[in-house]
Amino acid sequence: MCSSLWGKNVILGENVRIGENVVIGHNCIIEDNVTIGNNTFIDSNTIIRSFSSVGANSNIGSGCILGEYWKDFYKDHKKHEHHLVIGENALIRSGSIIYAGSTIGDSFQTGHQVTIREKTLIGNNVSIGTLSDIQGNCKIGNYVRLHSNVHIGQLSVIDDFVWIFPYVVLTNDPTPPSENLVGVHVHSFAIVATGSIIMPGLDIGQDCLIGAGAIVTKSVEPYAVAVGNPAKAISDVRKIKNKITGELAYPWREHFRNHMPWDKIGFDKWYSSLDIEDKAKYNLETIIE
Amino acid sequence: MCSSLWGKNVILGENVRIGENVVIGHNCIIEDNVTIGNNTFIDSNTIIRSFSSVGANSNIGSGCILGEYWKDFYKDHKKHEHHLVIGENALIRSGSIIYAGSTIGDSFQTGHQVTIREKTLIGNNVSIGTLSDIQGNCKIGNYVRLHSNVHIGQLSVIDDFVWIFPYVVLTNDPTPPSENLVGVHVHSFAIVATGSIIMPGLDIGQDCLIGAGAIVTKSVEPYAVAVGNPAKAISDVRKIKNKITGELAYPWREHFRNHMPWDKIGFDKWYSSLDIEDKAKYNLETIIE
Amino acid sequence: MCSSLWGKNVILGENVRIGENVVIGHNCIIEDNVTIGNNTFIDSNTIIRSFSSVGANSNIGSGCILGEYWKDFYKDHKKHEHHLVIGENALIRSGSIIYAGSTIGDSFQTGHQVTIREKTLIGNNVSIGTLSDIQGNCKIGNYVRLHSNVHIGQLSVIDDFVWIFPYVVLTNDPTPPSENLVGVHVHSFAIVATGSIIMPGLDIGQDCLIGAGAIVTKSVEPYAVAVGNPAKAISDVRKIKNKITGELAYPWREHFRNHMPWDKIGFDKWYSSLDIEDKAKYNLETIIE
Repeated sequence: MCSSLWGKNVILGENVRIGENVVIGHNCIIEDNVTIGNNTFIDSNTIIRSFSSVGANSNIGSGCILGEYWKDFYKDHKKHEHHLVIGENALIRSGSIIYAGSTIGDSFQTGHQVTIREKTLIGNNVSIGTLSDIQGNCKIGNYVRLHSNVHIGQLSVIDDFVWIFPYVVLTNDPTPPSENLVGVHVHSFAIVATGSIIMPGLDIGQDCLIGAGAIVTKSVEPYAVAVGNPAKAISDVRKIKNKITGELAYPWREHFRNHMPWDKIGFDKWYSSLDIEDKAKYNLETIIE
Repeated sequence: MCSSLWGKNVILGENVRIGENVVIGHNCIIEDNVTIGNNTFIDSNTIIRSFSSVGANSNIGSGCILGEYWKDFYKDHKKHEHHLVIGENALIRSGSIIYAGSTIGDSFQTGHQVTIREKTLIGNNVSIGTLSDIQGNCKIGNYVRLHSNVHIGQLSVIDDFVWIFPYVVLTNDPTPPSENLVGVHVHSFAIVATGSIIMPGLDIGQDCLIGAGAIVTKSVEPYAVAVGNPAKAISDVRKIKNKITGELAYPWREHFRNHMPWDKIGFDKWYSSLDIEDKAKYNLETIIE
Repeated sequence: MCSSLWGKNVILGENVRIGENVVIGHNCIIEDNVTIGNNTFIDSNTIIRSFSSVGANSNIGSGCILGEYWKDFYKDHKKHEHHLVIGENALIRSGSIIYAGSTIGDSFQTGHQVTIREKTLIGNNVSIGTLSDIQGNCKIGNYVRLHSNVHIGQLSVIDDFVWIFPYVVLTNDPTPPSENLVGVHVHSFAIVATGSIIMPGLDIGQDCLIGAGAIVTKSVEPYAVAVGNPAKAISDVRKIKNKITGELAYPWREHFRNHMPWDKIGFDKWYSSLDIEDKAKYNLETIIE
């Protein structure tokens, strides 16, 4: 444990395990029972609460709170044992708040002032944009990209390779206010464009495209394009051309490689190289062709 | 006054009155003329500015600013005497900013990074979700629940027992940009669902339901269900059934008790037990039956 | 350099140039190679990173980050030389994050928790509301007012005297996800009302009015009023009357003077007093009369 790269006024709890070559900025507060992996960088003014663990080679921006309290804390001011686990290679930007009691995979990335509540399960290579608000009790797969200011209601399930754009809301209460919540399920490769709202309990089908500003009141079939208020299926994504290149634009996995596992070889080659176990890993057993 | 539960680097102004059994976290700044009630917990990195008062048994999260400056401060850098009063049993979550010059009742709750501007009057048992932005100069009743990311324009009036869901905006300028602002009035028991926008000066009637994504351009009658762009009244809430239980879902007060004053006995029994003074307290003299 | 007005625990880097009569609050971190103009006030808990410059007579609220890191920082933890320049008379409210590599004019104002990414060029007298998110790589003119919670996608161009209201999104990806982005261009004096979404690459014409909740899928002509999903031009702004005063409300420049350069004499007198150079300064050579 080497303190030579620590800032001023760092406050350190008990039973803190800090890896090699860790940098901790000024005024950071690291509470009891925290684990920080090798080579991780924690910027100034950040709080890491008890029972949090951050993987190696991660960057935590300034003014973040990791392992934020559940409501039970405010009753007795005791630190209840809810664990936050964040994998390796995270990049969590300044001002983000991640609750205790969630598990997040490797290569996780956030924008600024993101809130992630308790009981959220997030896979690997997920990115969540500035001001997004994950309400907890939900499941997000691998290689999912949530853009800025997305609101994911409790009980939502988001499969792998899903894209959700700014100001989208996944709702969960069919007769508000009630306690009979039912989450949205967004299937693999679906794209939910800016400002659309998905009603509770719906299925957003594999590879479908929800147009900007759509108010989606019925489940959407795979490959469908749904737009309007209320949203109607008006086309098939496989008919949409890129206006600039003139090429068919969807399924997007055949055209977009950036940060995807098929980055270097293209989707088809990558997919045909997968064995059953690999496909299970990415929920690709059921891909509709 | 007991400092044994204070963190490091706490900065304390003059004429600060702190109750018994108060906890103050690391790096907190408590400016002059602040009052903090008994048993209140203030987490690290929070600033409480001059002329603020927080009631007993409250919890103030990390990195909050209570009593934020008005614009007049930036002209002369003097602390003008605008008072912030927050009642007992508050739970204000981390990153929230509440301006000086507002008055907030008991059992107030916020999510994270909420902004509440000056001249806001808030009743008892109100909850305001993460990232919501109350623009000031408005009035919010009792038992009102604003979910995440709600925008309440200046001059809005929200009566008791109102529910407003994420990404709703109450607007106030009929011919933007102008200085002839006119606020929205949301009446008791109304429900405004996700992403709807209410045009300036409209009345949202008692017990009505504004559907998700509605753009409301005319006032809505009590008990009406209004949806679409522009919104039209398409039904009566008293005809809507809960799809899971098959029961009539509205008026919601007959079915939903959580955190409501009729929690243990049901709305009808509670209502019939009220005398005139009680009804006046909750603006229930005028309830339409 | 006078430290008498500095708070406690201020951390100061090397080669920092601080003007006369500067106030720096508690716990501030001023990194290397920062320049701060005369009479500027920096509130507690704020971080100003390397290669940032703030003009004279400015106010920087509490908990801000100026000169936030680009992604390149997280690779090697070295401070790359991206310059942030903010003009004189700025008022940046608490919790705002402004990246390195942007240039902002005089009399800039923000609400709270605003994010402005790298490579943003902003003129003079611009105001950006609470929670707005400027995604970088975009150009904003003079006397532009972005209200709360506005999302400006990369490659957007916003001319002078434009008003954008809450929850508006300027998008940029015609076939998401793709890397063929194309920005929106909002022309002078245009008004984009609450909650509207502008599709990629469109022109929003001079003096036009985009109604609340419009989903704009085609470019909009000057002076047009466009509403609905998809938005259609339904009228001309020059026919709209102020319901309170009964007067024609648009073009708004003839009726609204607050904080505008024609504040004291009215638009027409001001405009007729401009020479060619003045008109070029405000992009008014091409004003359509």
